[in-house]
Amino acid sequence: MAALTERALVALLAQRFASPASGVELGIGDDAAVLAPSLEPWVCSVDASVDGVHFDLRYLTYEDVGYRSFQAAVSDLGAMGARPTAALSALILPRHMRAAAIDQLTEGQAQASRETGCPIVGGNISRGTELSVTTTVLGHAPQPIRRSGALPGDELWLIGPIGLAAAGLSCLRLARAGDRPGEGLAGSGSDAANGATAAVARCVEAWRRPRARLTEALELVGRAHAAIDLSDGLSSDAAQLAAASRVRVIVDLGQLRASLDPGLLVAGRYLRRSALRLAVTGGEDYALLATGPRRLRPAGAAPIGYIRRGAGAFLANGPRLLPLGKGFDHLRS
Amino acid sequence: MAALTERALVALLAQRFASPASGVELGIGDDAAVLAPSLEPWVCSVDASVDGVHFDLRYLTYEDVGYRSFQAAVSDLGAMGARPTAALSALILPRHMRAAAIDQLTEGQAQASRETGCPIVGGNISRGTELSVTTTVLGHAPQPIRRSGALPGDELWLIGPIGLAAAGLSCLRLARAGDRPGEGLAGSGSDAANGATAAVARCVEAWRRPRARLTEALELVGRAHAAIDLSDGLSSDAAQLAAASRVRVIVDLGQLRASLDPGLLVAGRYLRRSALRLAVTGGEDYALLATGPRRLRPAGAAPIGYIRRGAGAFLANGPRLLPLGKGFDHLRS
Repeated sequence: MAALTERALVALLAQRFASPASGVELGIGDDAAVLAPSLEPWVCSVDASVDGVHFDLRYLTYEDVGYRSFQAAVSDLGAMGARPTAALSALILPRHMRAAAIDQLTEGQAQASRETGCPIVGGNISRGTELSVTTTVLGHAPQPIRRSGALPGDELWLIGPIGLAAAGLSCLRLARAGDRPGEGLAGSGSDAANGATAAVARCVEAWRRPRARLTEALELVGRAHAAIDLSDGLSSDAAQLAAASRVRVIVDLGQLRASLDPGLLVAGRYLRRSALRLAVTGGEDYALLATGPRRLRPAGAAPIGYIRRGAGAFLANGPRLLPLGKGFDHLRS
Repeated sequence: MAALTERALVALLAQRFASPASGVELGIGDDAAVLAPSLEPWVCSVDASVDGVHFDLRYLTYEDVGYRSFQAAVSDLGAMGARPTAALSALILPRHMRAAAIDQLTEGQAQASRETGCPIVGGNISRGTELSVTTTVLGHAPQPIRRSGALPGDELWLIGPIGLAAAGLSCLRLARAGDRPGEGLAGSGSDAANGATAAVARCVEAWRRPRARLTEALELVGRAHAAIDLSDGLSSDAAQLAAASRVRVIVDLGQLRASLDPGLLVAGRYLRRSALRLAVTGGEDYALLATGPRRLRPAGAAPIGYIRRGAGAFLANGPRLLPLGKGFDHLRS
């Protein structure tokens, strides 16, 4: 590890992550961090990003890895209607990893930490053979929103675009195989090729640099009955929400189609893949799925279906119901 | 992973770790756990145990690995004078790991969780190539004890025996090399051999099943000026405390010797290693080092030195001062 001892690394991180923040009484450098008391419930979650499982260094810089692992973790706070307060970062660093790479990784974490207003107040560094970044996030929620609260009659809300990250990763794989954006578009003139290039760039950025929907999440407080982070994809997570709430979740095909990001449609054509399918099965956008009364729908939420009595999650094409739930699963994929 | 999907694993863990606990409003199964508000400051820390770095499966069962990784994490709360409230467990599990092994690992975590009164309220499971257990711990401290508060004139207190864990690991290595406890004792009769066997067993248990000093730690509150977890060994951690508090830490050789566990002395003879050296450089006992006014010394603390103006940590043999601080370092060991 280029002669960086654990102590030198901790000193480096303490400097990089040092940011005086309200609510933090003691940051990096002691046996534990100390956070100020609060009259609101605490919300806490942990998320790991493992090399070769959650990320692929052929397609991401170390800075990207740090950034997206942090956003992925913070997204779980958003899904509870919580404001981030602090994070802890546990790094397992391979012996061969160079100081410059560690520097980039932690710079990506620091960027995401600043953007989400969630200071890194502690952590742990271990050597190992496989790079992993495990992020614990802590926040406050005046009224935590559970995934189990959906009620029949609720609207189904999508917060943030979906499918873009999955399309972005597919584009990167194509590019690696030698293809270039625009070449896959039938009858592509210069405008179409430019449009494809922009759409591909947008999708790649969505995958490399996802953004937790924290501002939009706070608008759900007092409005939503249930919410879940769409990390595994709409198909899988809608089924999870249905099971937790013991209701039936109906995603309306027409509404979902209307909600799709224009960039996804262009990227889908370039990839020769269905944009709808990318939106339904693709994960890692860190969008949110929520339910609540139609009259309380926040401005940032797109209606994409509704909640019924019953069980399971379905995609409704008129009267036809296609079962959802066979989404991405980390351990099977 | 013997057909255990991530969802099945989460269900298994939710069942294993489910324990209604005061202060926990929502446990495993949502995007995040919810903890009740508290008027005391929150203390939080994260600790990772990595296969081949922090543990060796030739000498430990999976249950041991789960147990000691949890105790190691909780020990950091003790060092702050905090009571544990909740923990999050992030597991990276190799593909080849069998369901029975996962079961043992989590059973060890659950045992330590029960013994420390620190319920596991959430976590994360990922596949990977290298087994690691990353534990986040959260607790309350009425008055967090920092490592930076030591004052000249303070006594130096040791809470819990040290050196036993290092001796235990050495004994296991010897046993693996074919030696048997007792054989190394000069002129060993039956009593000496039996004594060695018992001492070896005690040391091995100290290494396999360390116990965070939580009860003793709470007795430090309102008495100690500073405290630090002795995870890396007295030599290294006394130097850390000195640096953080900008004082000189003096460990008195005679007092330290008087505080040594009798089992360590016997094990030292068996190992043909200095018990004192094992106590000074060996880590992983999860004892605590604290400082405070002599008149406030708690019953469970052994006086082993004192604090002076100056810098650095030293072992004092009469007027001679030997510098400490070249202890165990995870990244160099």
